[in-house]
Amino acid sequence: MRQEQIEREAGAAFMPKFDGQGLLTAVVVAAGTRDVLMVAFMDAAALEKTKETGFAHFHSRSRGRLWMKGETSGHVLKVLEIRVDCDQDALVLICEPHGPACHTGAISCFYRRLEGEGLRPVSD
Amino acid sequence: MRQEQIEREAGAAFMPKFDGQGLLTAVVVAAGTRDVLMVAFMDAAALEKTKETGFAHFHSRSRGRLWMKGETSGHVLKVLEIRVDCDQDALVLICEPHGPACHTGAISCFYRRLEGEGLRPVSD
Repeated sequence: MRQEQIEREAGAAFMPKFDGQGLLTAVVVAAGTRDVLMVAFMDAAALEKTKETGFAHFHSRSRGRLWMKGETSGHVLKVLEIRVDCDQDALVLICEPHGPACHTGAISCFYRRLEGEGLRPVSD
Repeated sequence: MRQEQIEREAGAAFMPKFDGQGLLTAVVVAAGTRDVLMVAFMDAAALEKTKETGFAHFHSRSRGRLWMKGETSGHVLKVLEIRVDCDQDALVLICEPHGPACHTGAISCFYRRLEGEGLRPVSD
């Protein structure tokens, strides 16, 4: 195994591995319920703003810009902890959500389950 | 709001929105502990194989091919439920893991937390 990979996987240094678009995958989990609330992407600027402010910032792939979750709705995500995966290309943000995380008004963006070829609402 | 977006967000039809690389983001959660175990990517073939077999398959971006999680280690992920997000570009796979999910031997790939500029092992 290459030395860089050993350091990345086993080390104490934060060496985020941004993809070809300069992004990390970020999974937002609610601290209380442990529900997965949303998935979004962070570039270096979004990561820096999140660390600096304590509120989740992302990079919008569709709008091509930095945004703070809740900047218009007020439904911000207070970040309590950031976990990093083995190869450092994905993060889990353990958050305290202020309001619903989904722009549809749902608590979580994952409000439907796949059943056969269709979708059904998640009840729990 | 455009009709397609309404259908995608509120409808009962599964209309997966693959990105420019033909991928969806997949977050694996353990059914029992609700831990986030790993994050990976699925193309249409990986999604089809997962639905067909009941075991998690992904598309490896580095190796450019379909793989079944655990195909060499035996640490497969039995998929109990697939949840779909609002815009249908991300999935949560609720799984029963057979062995550690991480190739390092850790139960979850997210075994470190960010503290300041460095990483610390997650104890819980």
